[in-house]
Amino acid sequence: MKILVQKFGGTSVADLEAMKHVLSKVQHGLEKNDKVIVVLSARAGETNKLLALAGQWSATPNKAECDCLVSTGEQVSIALFSMLLNDAGISARSLLSWQIPIRTNDDFGNARIMEIDRDVLMKQLELYDVLVVAGFQGVTEDGRITTLGRGGSDTSAVALAAALDSSECEIYTDVDGVYTTDPNICSAARKMDCVSYEEMLEMASMGAKVLHIRSVEFAKKYKVPVRVRSTFSEDAGTLVTQEDASMEAVLVSGIAYDKDQARVTLRNLPDVPGTAAAVFGPLSEKGVLVDMILQNTSQDGHTDITFTVSRKDLQATLAIMNEIADKIGASEILHDLSVAKVSAIGVGMRNHSGVAARAFTALTQEGINILMISTSEIKITILIQEKYVELAVRILHDTFGLDWDIA
Amino acid sequence: MKILVQKFGGTSVADLEAMKHVLSKVQHGLEKNDKVIVVLSARAGETNKLLALAGQWSATPNKAECDCLVSTGEQVSIALFSMLLNDAGISARSLLSWQIPIRTNDDFGNARIMEIDRDVLMKQLELYDVLVVAGFQGVTEDGRITTLGRGGSDTSAVALAAALDSSECEIYTDVDGVYTTDPNICSAARKMDCVSYEEMLEMASMGAKVLHIRSVEFAKKYKVPVRVRSTFSEDAGTLVTQEDASMEAVLVSGIAYDKDQARVTLRNLPDVPGTAAAVFGPLSEKGVLVDMILQNTSQDGHTDITFTVSRKDLQATLAIMNEIADKIGASEILHDLSVAKVSAIGVGMRNHSGVAARAFTALTQEGINILMISTSEIKITILIQEKYVELAVRILHDTFGLDWDIA
Repeated sequence: MKILVQKFGGTSVADLEAMKHVLSKVQHGLEKNDKVIVVLSARAGETNKLLALAGQWSATPNKAECDCLVSTGEQVSIALFSMLLNDAGISARSLLSWQIPIRTNDDFGNARIMEIDRDVLMKQLELYDVLVVAGFQGVTEDGRITTLGRGGSDTSAVALAAALDSSECEIYTDVDGVYTTDPNICSAARKMDCVSYEEMLEMASMGAKVLHIRSVEFAKKYKVPVRVRSTFSEDAGTLVTQEDASMEAVLVSGIAYDKDQARVTLRNLPDVPGTAAAVFGPLSEKGVLVDMILQNTSQDGHTDITFTVSRKDLQATLAIMNEIADKIGASEILHDLSVAKVSAIGVGMRNHSGVAARAFTALTQEGINILMISTSEIKITILIQEKYVELAVRILHDTFGLDWDIA
Repeated sequence: MKILVQKFGGTSVADLEAMKHVLSKVQHGLEKNDKVIVVLSARAGETNKLLALAGQWSATPNKAECDCLVSTGEQVSIALFSMLLNDAGISARSLLSWQIPIRTNDDFGNARIMEIDRDVLMKQLELYDVLVVAGFQGVTEDGRITTLGRGGSDTSAVALAAALDSSECEIYTDVDGVYTTDPNICSAARKMDCVSYEEMLEMASMGAKVLHIRSVEFAKKYKVPVRVRSTFSEDAGTLVTQEDASMEAVLVSGIAYDKDQARVTLRNLPDVPGTAAAVFGPLSEKGVLVDMILQNTSQDGHTDITFTVSRKDLQATLAIMNEIADKIGASEILHDLSVAKVSAIGVGMRNHSGVAARAFTALTQEGINILMISTSEIKITILIQEKYVELAVRILHDTFGLDWDIA
C-alpha cells in the first residue's frame, strides 16, 4: 500500500479559501498514492490566541492544562477539513492524537514522541482513503494531552511517515522549497532540488525556518524522504534525503546566518585546570545554552575565555558570571550585543580542505573582521559584527558559486 | 467519601470575572464535602460560534466531525478553570469525556450516555480534590467524540453524580431556582424550595428552561438529588428530589405554558377503525411529534380529529395531511397558529379530584374559551387562544394558591 503523508501549516488552513488549495493537493496526492495521511496545524493565529487566553487566566498557567487548551486549535482544523473532504466525496475522518495514539513523554509544552500505534492507523486506512491527523500534539502513557513545542506539526508528520513506511512526507509551507540562503538578503539565492539531512540539520540549527530541527532529526533517524513545497504553487519543492555522491561533489550547499548572538568575554583568568568547568557548569545548570567558545592561549599563566549565548540569555549569563567572577579570578567581564554568525554548510567539505581558508580570505578582502571561528565536519561558522551580516552572506554565496545551477 | 457534583453553564464561565464566582462556589463546596466534581459548559456563545464555522465550511457538515469541532468549546472551559483552581492552591485537573470515559451511543449531535467508568474517577479523586469535567460530550465505543444535544451538560452532571453516588448534584444557572411559574408574566411567582422529579419532568416538557428533560429523567432513574441555584447569589435554590408526603399535600405545584403549538383539524372523517392510525402513522414516520389529540364523538358515521404539533412542524404536517386526505376521506383540513397551552402540575392531584373542574371554572369565568383539554396523573393541560396565555397563567396561579407560601 502506497501511503503519502502531507503536512499543512497554519496559513494553509487559515480559512475556507486556503483549505480549498489544501483539498486540491490532497486530491493530487490520492491520484498517485493509495492512501493519504493529512497532518494539520491550527489555523494561523489560533495557537497564539489560545496562549493569550491562558495568559489572561494565569501568570504561570499549569502546563498540562495549557496543552489541553492549546490542542483545541488543531482539533478545529482537522474537523473542518474532514467536513470539506466528505463533501468532496472523499472517504475521510479526523484523528486526534489520543485516538491513534501518538504517545509522548510527559514534558508538557515540549513533549517528545515515543511511539505511534501503526496497527490502529492501518485499520483506519482500510476504512478511509484519507486520515486527517491533528499535528503538534500527543498523549502521555496515562492519557493526558501534550503538545510538541515549536514546529511540532512537522515532527508529527515525519513520525507518522516513519510509522507507516510512507513513500514520502510532504511538508507544505508558504515558500516553495529550501534556498541556498535567505532570498531576502541575497537576490542570487537559488532553490535547491535536493539537500541532505545533515545539511538541513545545520541550516535548521542556524534558524532557517523552513523545517524544525527535531523533525529533520526524526527524518534522518528513520530515513523518511521529506519534500518541502508550497501549498500555493505546483513547484516540486526541495527533497530532504540521504546524502549521495552527487551531493558530495558540491563543496558548499548553503549559507545560513543567525543574529541571535551575544558575546561574553572573561578577562585574565588563571589558566588552571577546572576553570572552564567553573564557568560553563553554572550556565548549564540554569539552562543557558552556550554556542561558540574560544579560549586564548595562555600568557603569563593567564587566559581569556570568550563565548556566545542567545541574546535572551545574556542578562542571566552576566548575573551568573558576576557571581562567580571572584571565585574564578576573572579581572573583567565584557559583553557585546552587536555580533552575529554566518555559516557555510555542505557535506562536500568532508572530502575537501581549504574551505575555511577560502571563506576567511573572501571576508577579510572585503574588510570584514573575523571575531570567532568554529568548524564542524560539514559547517564553518564565523562570528562577525552584526552590521556586516548581509554583506557576508552575499560574499560567501558568491565565493562558493551557489548562484550557479550545478546540475 | 462525600462527593459533590457542581455544574456551571455558559454564562457562569463566560469570562475570567464569572469564573471567579465559580471558583468561590467550588471552594464552598469543598468546605462541606471531601471532593468536588465540576462540570462545565462551553463559554457563552462559543458553541454557536463553532456551529456557525461548521456552517461556513459545509451546508450539511458531517455529524461526527461536527461533534469533534464543537466539543472543543468545553475543552477550553475546563482547561482555563483548572488553571484558576491550580493558582488558588486547589489540587485539580481537567478531564475530557474520553479520559474517563463517558461512553455514549453513536447518535452524533444527540448522543445518549450509556456508561461512566466509576473506577477511573475514584482513582483520580485519590490524586486530586477537584476534577473539572467537560460537560455536553461523550465518546463512542470505538473512540469517537460525541455531543449530547441541548442541555447536555446538565445530563453529564447528573450522570456523573449517579455514577459516584454523590451527596447532591448542584446545577448552577443564572436564576436562583425553579419558580411556580414564569416570573416574567406573573409577579406573584414564587421560588419553590422543593419539587419532585415528576413535577420537574412535566415542567421541563412544557419548555421550562431551568433543567433539560433528559437530565431530570436521569436524576429520577438514579435518585440523584438535584439542586438548581444561581452562580451569582447565596440562595439555597430549589431541590429536585423524590416525592414525599409534604409534596402531596400541595394540590398544584406549578403553572407552565408553551406557545410553540399549532392546531390541525381534519373534518368529516368516516368513523371507521384504522382512521387514527392512517393519520398519525405517516406523521410519526416523518419524525413529527403530535402533542394533544381530540376526536369528536361520531355524528352520522363521521367525526373530526384535532391535534397539535410544534409550529416548526406545521408545514410538514399539512403536506402529509394533503397527501393522505383523499385516502382517509377528510372533507377539509384546517389549521390554526394562534393557540397555546397552559398546564397545572402537581403530584397532589393523584389524591384529589376536582382540580380540572376548578381550572375550567376559573378560566371560563374570565371569558377564556377552552379549545382542548388533556390530563395526566399529575398534570392538566388546556389549549387556549395564544393571546390569553399570560392571563390564564395568572388566573391559575391565583386559583391554586401558589402565591401563598405553604410551609
